[in-house]
Amino acid sequence: MVDPNAIMEEAARLAEAARELDDAAAALISRTWNEEQSLRQRALALESDLRRLQSSLDSAAKKKGAIDSKIAEKVDEELYRVRCVINDGDVASLLPSKAHGRFLKMFLGPVNVRATRKEVQLKVKEEYNSYRDRTAFLFLIFPSTLLLLRSWVWDGCLPALPVQLYQVWLLYLYTTLALRENILSVNGSDIRPWWIYHHYCAMLMALISLTWEIRRQPDCAYKQRGVQLFLVWAMMQGVAMLLQNRYQRQRLYTRIALGKAKRMDVVWGETAGVEGQLLLLCPILFILQGFEAFIGLLLLRTAFVGVTCEWQVIVCGILLVLMAIGNFANTMQTLIAKSRFKAKMKRTRSKQDIDQCISSVDPSLMGSKSSKAS
Amino acid sequence: MVDPNAIMEEAARLAEAARELDDAAAALISRTWNEEQSLRQRALALESDLRRLQSSLDSAAKKKGAIDSKIAEKVDEELYRVRCVINDGDVASLLPSKAHGRFLKMFLGPVNVRATRKEVQLKVKEEYNSYRDRTAFLFLIFPSTLLLLRSWVWDGCLPALPVQLYQVWLLYLYTTLALRENILSVNGSDIRPWWIYHHYCAMLMALISLTWEIRRQPDCAYKQRGVQLFLVWAMMQGVAMLLQNRYQRQRLYTRIALGKAKRMDVVWGETAGVEGQLLLLCPILFILQGFEAFIGLLLLRTAFVGVTCEWQVIVCGILLVLMAIGNFANTMQTLIAKSRFKAKMKRTRSKQDIDQCISSVDPSLMGSKSSKAS
Repeated sequence: MVDPNAIMEEAARLAEAARELDDAAAALISRTWNEEQSLRQRALALESDLRRLQSSLDSAAKKKGAIDSKIAEKVDEELYRVRCVINDGDVASLLPSKAHGRFLKMFLGPVNVRATRKEVQLKVKEEYNSYRDRTAFLFLIFPSTLLLLRSWVWDGCLPALPVQLYQVWLLYLYTTLALRENILSVNGSDIRPWWIYHHYCAMLMALISLTWEIRRQPDCAYKQRGVQLFLVWAMMQGVAMLLQNRYQRQRLYTRIALGKAKRMDVVWGETAGVEGQLLLLCPILFILQGFEAFIGLLLLRTAFVGVTCEWQVIVCGILLVLMAIGNFANTMQTLIAKSRFKAKMKRTRSKQDIDQCISSVDPSLMGSKSSKAS
Repeated sequence: MVDPNAIMEEAARLAEAARELDDAAAALISRTWNEEQSLRQRALALESDLRRLQSSLDSAAKKKGAIDSKIAEKVDEELYRVRCVINDGDVASLLPSKAHGRFLKMFLGPVNVRATRKEVQLKVKEEYNSYRDRTAFLFLIFPSTLLLLRSWVWDGCLPALPVQLYQVWLLYLYTTLALRENILSVNGSDIRPWWIYHHYCAMLMALISLTWEIRRQPDCAYKQRGVQLFLVWAMMQGVAMLLQNRYQRQRLYTRIALGKAKRMDVVWGETAGVEGQLLLLCPILFILQGFEAFIGLLLLRTAFVGVTCEWQVIVCGILLVLMAIGNFANTMQTLIAKSRFKAKMKRTRSKQDIDQCISSVDPSLMGSKSSKAS
């Protein structure tokens, strides 16, 4: 038995509640927007003050004797702290977000991928790390399976389809890595731009290798020399990635614990390992880079010496050599920056200073501002 | 001349301002989060009340005579309005966002692409529309240039590189369209799922066609029959897209003006044209779909009859036929839904009712709630 009046009353009640809720939501959104706007104004004003003071400090430091070097250092530290807040504090999420970059705009349009709350940013970062882990595993499995099957099942001659599937996977992988790294960068991670460019190159190479014919010649062992070397290199890459991921994550946690790193930091393909492990990683990275350049040169040689001169071979060769050079240069730069940073740390700032600055702008959980009191 | 004291004072002032700003931002973020949380609770409660009442109404409607049909209709309308608020009102942006779908997660990870403010959502939508416009133009230019060059310059035989560039562009295009449509869907647009699946199929086809050898046989006019037909179809598609875009945008504006459409609606490849123009669009769409199926079947025939039987030809043929069938089915469904909706509109609700509901939940500018008073 249904009471029509009760149902109608209930429906009217819900409609009323919906109206109220809608008004409340609209009011909240508009009020929040206004408050954010006013904070944004203050932050922008602070930013311009900072720039002004920094430039007058810099010009004073240039004229000898215009300012005491100790005072200059102290002011410099103060300004460093201000910059910390503007770039990494809670207010950073309210500032006009960093340019999204052409790549993200090309793929996603004008949508905003910057998370306001630190927890969400950290979740994105965590997920990126675990994605890299899963990926590194596949990076090892995929090419080694192909190489094993080649000698055991396929009689030394790779069929086209499995290799093409692998290339499609590489294309997907590099595209998603480039997208995710761009997103991380928008969210305040200071990943070195080269590692993103590196993935653009890799995307291009995967795309080109798809158009590259694999079967065709009867003399397949000779023809497939390039593919085979590439697979061996990919296997080594997989091992290196696994090592890197483990060490870097470990190191990142250590650094976060020490207050040296922002939690959004990403160190991809970089030499940042826990000190002792660095001694293991560095040679592996340099060997990989050398091998990468070697395969590139080998491809170029087959293109110029061999019978058929396909443009794909030449372009892939050039790309590999470029990537090897870029990787090497960036690894070196990181190592140099690392040792410089260390020297500077010893020379000027006490570690505690840095710790304070970082911890004041990167509370691990929102609202846990009490930890700043330390 | 620099006054060290003035500089140090200024630096200290900035540091203090930075600290205050950081605290204010943290407080705002945490307060907003709490307020959003409470609204979210209310919205979820409302949602469950709505479900409960709807089900009791439905069960009452099933038993004959248990409830007067006029009352049931009235309650139904009331509940429709509540659903409007929950799904499209300002509170919608605070509710746990719609599932992002596997595709977005695969490419972007767990990042949130839902915009809170309606203006941003609209900007995303606008940009999608203009992207489609630019795309439609290229969709026309690209294949027609290839076909013209083929007969004028290339002696009836397409070289591999330009065609592959075109295929890479197609792959990029369909990937970005699929990404953007998924993002629009997360932002509340009710695009039919088929048109997104359709782009997944098209992505797959572009990828496969990249691995497909184009040169090779001396008998190239025969071998390239499939590519050629595909290009002709793409040209027709370009014309249809240009027409569709113009009409649909026009129609969307009309519908928004009449209060019939949410601003986030997308009608891609659909039959929604301004009434008279529908008579022009419908035949073009059906011809295109027929042609798509025809090319698919032709590809399948060459695969089974021809000399070489490449798997790419078979898969592309099947995909084209599937896409044609899906497009046809969805166009028909849209037409049927359209006429049903019209019939229902005439039968039950006065147009004014709908207008009210929509305008109450979709103010064109945030804060312009005064327009609700009507």
